[in-house]
Amino acid sequence: MNKLSVIRLKGQSDRRLRAGHHWIYSNEVNTNATPLKQFEPGDQVVVENAQGKALGIATINPNTLICGRLISRSVDTVLNKSTLVHRLKIALSLRESSYNTPYYRLVFGDADGLSGLVVDRFADILVVQISTAGMERVKSEIIEALQDVVKPVAILMKNDGKMRNIEGLDTYVEEVVGTVPEVVYLQENDTLFQAPVWDGQKTGWFYDHRENRKTMQQYCAGKRVLDVFSYVGGWGVQAAAAGATDVTFIDASAPALDHVEANLALNQFEGNSDLMNGDAFEAMQSLIEDKERFDVVVMDPPAFIARRKDIKAGEGAYHRANQLAMRLVAKGGLLVTGSCSMHLATDRLHDIIRSNSRQLERFSQLIYRGTQAPDHPVHPAIEETEYLKALFYRVHNNMGL
Amino acid sequence: MNKLSVIRLKGQSDRRLRAGHHWIYSNEVNTNATPLKQFEPGDQVVVENAQGKALGIATINPNTLICGRLISRSVDTVLNKSTLVHRLKIALSLRESSYNTPYYRLVFGDADGLSGLVVDRFADILVVQISTAGMERVKSEIIEALQDVVKPVAILMKNDGKMRNIEGLDTYVEEVVGTVPEVVYLQENDTLFQAPVWDGQKTGWFYDHRENRKTMQQYCAGKRVLDVFSYVGGWGVQAAAAGATDVTFIDASAPALDHVEANLALNQFEGNSDLMNGDAFEAMQSLIEDKERFDVVVMDPPAFIARRKDIKAGEGAYHRANQLAMRLVAKGGLLVTGSCSMHLATDRLHDIIRSNSRQLERFSQLIYRGTQAPDHPVHPAIEETEYLKALFYRVHNNMGL
Repeated sequence: MNKLSVIRLKGQSDRRLRAGHHWIYSNEVNTNATPLKQFEPGDQVVVENAQGKALGIATINPNTLICGRLISRSVDTVLNKSTLVHRLKIALSLRESSYNTPYYRLVFGDADGLSGLVVDRFADILVVQISTAGMERVKSEIIEALQDVVKPVAILMKNDGKMRNIEGLDTYVEEVVGTVPEVVYLQENDTLFQAPVWDGQKTGWFYDHRENRKTMQQYCAGKRVLDVFSYVGGWGVQAAAAGATDVTFIDASAPALDHVEANLALNQFEGNSDLMNGDAFEAMQSLIEDKERFDVVVMDPPAFIARRKDIKAGEGAYHRANQLAMRLVAKGGLLVTGSCSMHLATDRLHDIIRSNSRQLERFSQLIYRGTQAPDHPVHPAIEETEYLKALFYRVHNNMGL
Repeated sequence: MNKLSVIRLKGQSDRRLRAGHHWIYSNEVNTNATPLKQFEPGDQVVVENAQGKALGIATINPNTLICGRLISRSVDTVLNKSTLVHRLKIALSLRESSYNTPYYRLVFGDADGLSGLVVDRFADILVVQISTAGMERVKSEIIEALQDVVKPVAILMKNDGKMRNIEGLDTYVEEVVGTVPEVVYLQENDTLFQAPVWDGQKTGWFYDHRENRKTMQQYCAGKRVLDVFSYVGGWGVQAAAAGATDVTFIDASAPALDHVEANLALNQFEGNSDLMNGDAFEAMQSLIEDKERFDVVVMDPPAFIARRKDIKAGEGAYHRANQLAMRLVAKGGLLVTGSCSMHLATDRLHDIIRSNSRQLERFSQLIYRGTQAPDHPVHPAIEETEYLKALFYRVHNNMGL
């Protein structure tokens, strides 16, 4: 421990850390006293405030705007296998208290005290994403710690996220333990799925909407359901499993729709299904023109707002997408609208629905505000850990109000 | 219809209505053109914008700040039995699509297009609260419409809310149909309860936390649970029903704790229960001093912020109450914190937990953001219809972060 170098923060720059956050920005470091250039990406250092008081240990990347990520508030705790094992056990205990089956996000970065690390669990197969130089440095310790705590038969490193370029890390996808099949199987709310972990989006599956999909299922029995931006069918196949008689899926990816078909078969769906391959806006427009209406419409698009500067254009896209979706809701039906854009505030999405309701002369009632599932916990001091929303509206067109 | 008088709004004062809201403030009316004094409380009028365009029908109370409440955006739809029946049917259909049992809030005011009316259903007994002169005027039509749509055996008018004084209405509690017993029975998430409808708080029961209590139940099996501000045991008795081995209730009302005891017996609870009658702050302090700790602590106080001017003092009370509650959470346990104050923003409550976590050196993870149940829908243009929150935090004290 004594060997660790020090970074010294400027004047009031310890404020964010004292409030509970884990990140240090490069302009907050007193680089005269402690030049960042002396460090290699992934080094661990002691963080001191301007008065020289130690605040804890952080990993450092001298080349990124977020140059430090707090590992611990004790100078005795560095990021090593022992710390990883301890935090993985705490992370596992949360998931085991929330779920009876071994299908969940096991590690969610900062919110589990493991900045830069994501692990999704598919029973005895783990898919790992490392996004920071600090975590990349302890990659072998991560693998060992996961083997100790979870005892998986296989681990896939899905290290192809955009963040890695920023951190100066190469991108690759590789098996680091055992053999990982092309698709893995999982169970969510008693529905079975296959997920393309090698070449799908992110880790291949999005566990974050689990509770929201479960809530949707309450409204699906005997109903006609539309799943827009379906990907491999997370919403629509669970609607089918909950008794929907007719489910239409829209996605721009033909391989994703192949997985939808496989997932419907996995759950022995005997109702009617339609797979529409193409642009979601065009597909919705054609359904409107054909006078198709659905009892439940799920509008869960990919992030239309990736960066803060995209907010205005992105909000326009959410407005248009949700307007088309609302037009497709049958009288008294349900509009399920989601967003995974951290930069789209929940209340902005709610206001988009308000505005669309007025424009289309609908009477809408918000009956459920969903967020990310408990395996994607939110750290109360780190707003960046909260991103997902799902709002459910009952949509009437005959209230006269 | 032609006989209705008109109120004319000032310049831009139709903006709120155009955005979807239902309320008209007295300073928005052009009282030179259309004096409010000509109206009796409860009259219905045509509302016109400054240019003389009809915007719809509203009930009027010339003596209140909120002087108008929109009934319809069509000048052909007044508030009468027919309109009440139509809206009650729509309200009922939402509840029937959400719940399998006849225990719910059947009407939630503005969010159901029925400003000033609340109806809670306990199977074939209804408890009605009227809070505006407009609804009081059609009281007999409301009773008839409820009989037509729901066919209850008894209706209690629990007309003792604070709003009635503002509206110039007298307060009373009376049976208007059939006979209403001292306590009525209800089922929430498969747990049985008796509720004191004649002399309890509000309608006697709070259905609004139903989904939040259901979520809490997932974390209660084999656990020790504390229910602070328990009232008749909504949270704690459901924790007991979900397998908690030990439940402690704190409430200042001895009659409320008698109902807790009855409700535990109704569900044949065989675990250990403690009933602490007294001030919640003092009771929590004594539990802390006795080194008692609980796996699940529920902190769901009455509204500490009744009016906007109470925000600062009220936030202090939420801070203190939640700090005591957090100190009572066992290592890795769950803090369930609620608020029914519309003036306490969810993110302020979240920040109170962040701040307490830092002060007490805990690592907290938000795992659930709950709101009011679907039988308390939110109107997207009427922020006053949204008030309830329940945040669940996993609280660790050994993460070193």
